[in-house]
Parts: sequence; structure tokens; C-alpha cells
Amino acid sequence: MPKLWNETIEEHRRAVREATLDATAKLVAEHGLTSVTMSRIAKETGIGRATLYKYFPDVESILLAWHERKVTGHLEYLTKVREETGGTAGERLEAVLEAFAVILAHRPHGNHGHHKGHGDHAGHGEQGGHGAELSAFLHQGEQATVAHQRLHNMIRDLLAEGARDGDLRDDVAPDELASYCVNALMAARGLHSEAAAHRLVKVTFAGLRPPP
Amino acid sequence: MPKLWNETIEEHRRAVREATLDATAKLVAEHGLTSVTMSRIAKETGIGRATLYKYFPDVESILLAWHERKVTGHLEYLTKVREETGGTAGERLEAVLEAFAVILAHRPHGNHGHHKGHGDHAGHGEQGGHGAELSAFLHQGEQATVAHQRLHNMIRDLLAEGARDGDLRDDVAPDELASYCVNALMAARGLHSEAAAHRLVKVTFAGLRPPP
Repeated sequence: MPKLWNETIEEHRRAVREATLDATAKLVAEHGLTSVTMSRIAKETGIGRATLYKYFPDVESILLAWHERKVTGHLEYLTKVREETGGTAGERLEAVLEAFAVILAHRPHGNHGHHKGHGDHAGHGEQGGHGAELSAFLHQGEQATVAHQRLHNMIRDLLAEGARDGDLRDDVAPDELASYCVNALMAARGLHSEAAAHRLVKVTFAGLRPPP
Repeated sequence: MPKLWNETIEEHRRAVREATLDATAKLVAEHGLTSVTMSRIAKETGIGRATLYKYFPDVESILLAWHERKVTGHLEYLTKVREETGGTAGERLEAVLEAFAVILAHRPHGNHGHHKGHGDHAGHGEQGGHGAELSAFLHQGEQATVAHQRLHNMIRDLLAEGARDGDLRDDVAPDELASYCVNALMAARGLHSEAAAHRLVKVTFAGLRPPP
């Protein structure tokens, strides 16, 4: 049976979208957030500018879609880590924190393809100016906020379970401890290596143990 | 002896600057970052627009100067806390972390004079859009970066001293531990109370103790 017209339209839309976001990921990794423009995307993908503008009205909408695809992917990965790790709630939490720290440590930094190890809070390889503003804009996106909340909840629930088991501290609310975890691990953005990310998780996790 | 012409000019400059930054602080606290405009500052201070524009070319330069005055003040306060706290390096560090967490918890949040307790990373009471971008712009300012680095160094030096004394862990470099501290305490931005800030410091500090 031949495909319905609607299906091919939908397929075309999806192909354009994926190619656009793949090209965006490549440009951001190599040259930073501010390097992404409609013309460069058109050139990288071979998609005509008219077609590109049909699906994305401006470069911000492309960056937002790229960032959302990325954070959704990270969240799916962390959910998988939680589910595939055996052992106690504390052990599963440590595995999730470790995976999150490694994701943050691997985030591209630097404007020109270098992976600088600075500790900027804006992230995405841009220091100062328009890059920082773009980065702030992306982090405030709806999907990014939802993903952040879901990560917080995942960590919170593991903390609550660990506290009930007596493995983790129960003198501070799991919600507050989850904020502590997510914020502490943000230090991984400035790290050079997985070994340093691992040490950060060790230190962060030490804060979660029951007080002596 | 009458004042020299240069001195009165300098005094006038300083008075305009202080009045402008005071008005900015008030507007930001009550209505958020995006509420600050040249006309509102002129109206609040009674300074003529022509005079205002002579000292500040645009609203961004006012916000930057306000933010720099604020972070410099915070740093001076934290230095004072470190110097006036007696006891071991660990105790002085805990006092500095506590003071920093309370500063962060007290930062105004919310667009309309409400102090919302959300955990946004942009801070300064603006969620989304232009406010987040402005906030990112301010945090990338030169003085803010210098103050951040000096705070990092202050914490790092106390950590090194505490590690030498055997009070704090020495299995992770003081630089990495300082990043952990500063990032973990950023969770204070979402907190409602000094009690919660205190709990956050307790948890963060637990991560710094020598492993059993």
C-alpha cells in the first residue's frame, strides 16, 4: 500500500527536523552557540532556506528544539541508569549522580572547538555576551524546566527511599537534599576529567550519609 | 579652604552614582530586573535625564554598576566574617559558607515584589525571557567574575588549611572542593528560610569531612 500523503509529509518534517538538530549539535560543539545561523544550518544540511524557514521561524527556535532534544535524551539515559542499577536506593542514587556528573563534565565548552575546563555557570561553551544570554534563554525553555523537575523528582524519590532504609540521612527533607545534589553536581561543568567528576560525586554523596 | 572644582565634580559624580544605584536596588527588589529603565531611575532619584545619561550611557551600564556594587559588598562582608570568626579553619569555613548561603537565600526573587522560593539558576527574580538574559549578562560582568574568583580562593584556602589540620578531607584537591561548596550553596537561592539555608550548609559541610 502506498504511503498516505500525510505520512510522507510527516516523514519529511521529521527528517528536516532531525537533520537540522544534528547540524546544530555539530556547530555548537565545534564553534559554540552563537555560531548557529540559518545560513550555516542550510549549508550544513543541504536543506533549502525556504524549507528551513517553513519549519523553524528563526534560529532561536532551532536552538530551543536542539536543547530540548538533548535534555530529553539525558533524562531518558538517567532513567535507564536508575532502572538498570541493582542494589539499594543509595547505590542507585549514586549511579544516577555519577551519570549526571559525567554528562555535565562532557558538555562542550569553548568557542572554537576547544573543550575548556572553566567553571562558567552559563555553560554551552560561551563566555560573556550573547552566548551567555542565549544559554540563559535555552535553560528557561519549557522542556528544559520540565526535564530539570523530573530529574529533581527522581533524585528526591531515591533519597526518600534511602532515608527509609537507613542508608541516607533523614534529618533533612528529600526535596532539600535533591536541590543540594543537583546544584553540587553543577561543579562538574568546570571539570576536565571523568576522574574529577567521580571525586565530585564522592564528596556530594558524603553529604547525604546519616550524620554520625 | 574652599573645595577645588575637581573635588566638587567628583563628589557630584559619586552622589549621582550612589543615588542611581540605590534606586536601582529598590526597583529590582520590588519589581525585578526588567523594571529598571532610565525614566524610572530619573523619576525615583529626581536626577535629570540629561545628567543621568552623562554618567550612564544606558540601562545596562546602570544594572552592571548596581550588580558590581552588590557583589563587592557581599565579598567584603564574607571577608569580615572569615576574619572575625575564631577557632579552626574548619569553623571559619563553616561561618563563611553559612553567611554566603544566607545572602543567597535573601536574594530577591519574583517579578512583582513577591519573594518566590523557586530554584531558578538565573536569579535576580526573573524567570524566562529578557530577565534571564539580563541576569546572565550581569553574572558575566568583569567585577562579578573577579568577586566569584576571590570567594572561590577564600574558600579554597580555608579548605587547604583545614585539610592540613586534619579537620577536613585531604583526598580531594581544595580547588575541586571549593567548586563543590560554591555550587552546592547555590541551592540556597531556592530556599524560603534561614533555617533551610542552615540545613544546606550542614549537608554541604558534611561532604568536606575526612572520610571514615
